[in-house]
Amino acid sequence: MASCAFVSKLSQVTGRFCSKASCPTRTTVRALTCTATRAQLHKVEGTSALAGKVDRFGGVTVNLADAGLPADISEGAFSRLLQDCLVQWKAEGKVAVWLRVPISLSRCAAAASTHGFTFHHAKHDHAVLALWMGRGESRLPGFATHQVGVAGAVVDESTGKVLVVQDRNKTKNAWKFPGGLSDPGENIGATAVREVFEETGVRSEFRSLLSIRQQHNHPGAFGISDMYIICRLSPLTYDINFCTQECLRCEWLDLARLTTTKDTTPITSRIAKLLLHGLEQGFDKIDLTMEELPAVYSGMFYQLYHRQLLKS
Amino acid sequence: MASCAFVSKLSQVTGRFCSKASCPTRTTVRALTCTATRAQLHKVEGTSALAGKVDRFGGVTVNLADAGLPADISEGAFSRLLQDCLVQWKAEGKVAVWLRVPISLSRCAAAASTHGFTFHHAKHDHAVLALWMGRGESRLPGFATHQVGVAGAVVDESTGKVLVVQDRNKTKNAWKFPGGLSDPGENIGATAVREVFEETGVRSEFRSLLSIRQQHNHPGAFGISDMYIICRLSPLTYDINFCTQECLRCEWLDLARLTTTKDTTPITSRIAKLLLHGLEQGFDKIDLTMEELPAVYSGMFYQLYHRQLLKS
Repeated sequence: MASCAFVSKLSQVTGRFCSKASCPTRTTVRALTCTATRAQLHKVEGTSALAGKVDRFGGVTVNLADAGLPADISEGAFSRLLQDCLVQWKAEGKVAVWLRVPISLSRCAAAASTHGFTFHHAKHDHAVLALWMGRGESRLPGFATHQVGVAGAVVDESTGKVLVVQDRNKTKNAWKFPGGLSDPGENIGATAVREVFEETGVRSEFRSLLSIRQQHNHPGAFGISDMYIICRLSPLTYDINFCTQECLRCEWLDLARLTTTKDTTPITSRIAKLLLHGLEQGFDKIDLTMEELPAVYSGMFYQLYHRQLLKS
Repeated sequence: MASCAFVSKLSQVTGRFCSKASCPTRTTVRALTCTATRAQLHKVEGTSALAGKVDRFGGVTVNLADAGLPADISEGAFSRLLQDCLVQWKAEGKVAVWLRVPISLSRCAAAASTHGFTFHHAKHDHAVLALWMGRGESRLPGFATHQVGVAGAVVDESTGKVLVVQDRNKTKNAWKFPGGLSDPGENIGATAVREVFEETGVRSEFRSLLSIRQQHNHPGAFGISDMYIICRLSPLTYDINFCTQECLRCEWLDLARLTTTKDTTPITSRIAKLLLHGLEQGFDKIDLTMEELPAVYSGMFYQLYHRQLLKS
């Protein structure tokens, strides 16, 4: 159901022109033998307009990259097109509309916002906007809320020492375990091993998860939340070759000394005590070990970390 | 350093007109006694153009909502303005540019993309775009990568039973612990308690963290990763009043039975075994308890989950 303005815009694109001087109703436009633009009209009108995929929750998703829109469609024209589709989707009882907008068509996001759409998320070359049309409070699923960081405590059981670093960029010179943010799609253990290597030059392998820290409104992290996970690793090599851009110092430090020194952070101190206990009483007392399992429905693998039960 | 086209655009907005028929250089425009538009020019030219905040990493952040741009600035005009600013920022050695774009000015995002900007993230009413200008691989921090879900296992120590539900929306009727996604800013324990109450009507309180599941490319979650955390809770009330929209059934089930039944998921089965061990040998054998601590630099609180050491 395209308005006349949109028809003429479209015909400017196609080079044909609907010569009715007046076009009293949208239905009339559709019924006219405006053959030149009929194919395009049909593509953008009625049930094919902004064709979307319907999901099992009663929502519809439209990818503007595939919608056959002219690359230079104006905000006004898109707004009118969207309005017509919204009327139809509401009549069909759709509870939500998702609009995937390629960055080059970002002006359509502005147009959509006048109809109540807001940003759901955006990555690289596209944004996704959403509109809740169901009853009551929005039941739209949120997006990612946390970044994940991982620290690795490499314990040399033969010497009772643990690999620690002092951060170059902080004012206080505190001993900490090397660590950093996970890359997208990277497993916890892989992050720990990678960050240890990048910061210290030491190769290691994952043994267990020890502790998790959760913090909201993480400073300097765009108001998102932070999950920081501390792991226990075993060394595969021992020579230190630390990254001078990130670290001021890097050493194998006596675990016992790390539990008592003031030159460390509260977390590092607590984990050091835990590790010392593990060193003395057995790491099975403190470890959460990893098990890889297939997901029930998708068959895709996930990693489960939990205390391992002793056979009894 | 606005081009003539931008000056005339701006003067259309302000109602004044620079009458130089030709304007050979940008410097000349700035030097002209075009007093009417000088204030606006100064605001958009030179070092004040798109005034941004510089951060300690050598990046500059510009909020287009505060940049004094005309609300109807065209993509072309913004593109030229941005181009001039980029030249200046590069000359100043800035390594990154962050553009905060209110949704109504989304066409500026399209213009920015032609200069290499990509979406970093977007939420509600604005998007943030970023451009790496430093040497080598981008060192821009990423955005949130994980959603966080929490399940709560409410164990009634007096009866050896645990509160479980069967999901209405799944095809397989498996006993599971009630749970769901954390709200933004919500702590793990709070999510567990809330979800248990919403699904079952039972009030409970957080005791410990037991297990974590990590999965990437979570189906139906926009390609983001998923961290699912299972907690142990203690009941405060016992009467079940379950949410029929989400659950098919809800019961206090014998823990021992949950460890052997086939009508459950691999995770639930494993956690049930862990819980039974805790019931028999003491929950201190399996718990990661929570400690709240102030962050070293900001003083803001975070929550740390770890094995509690027995006094020895």
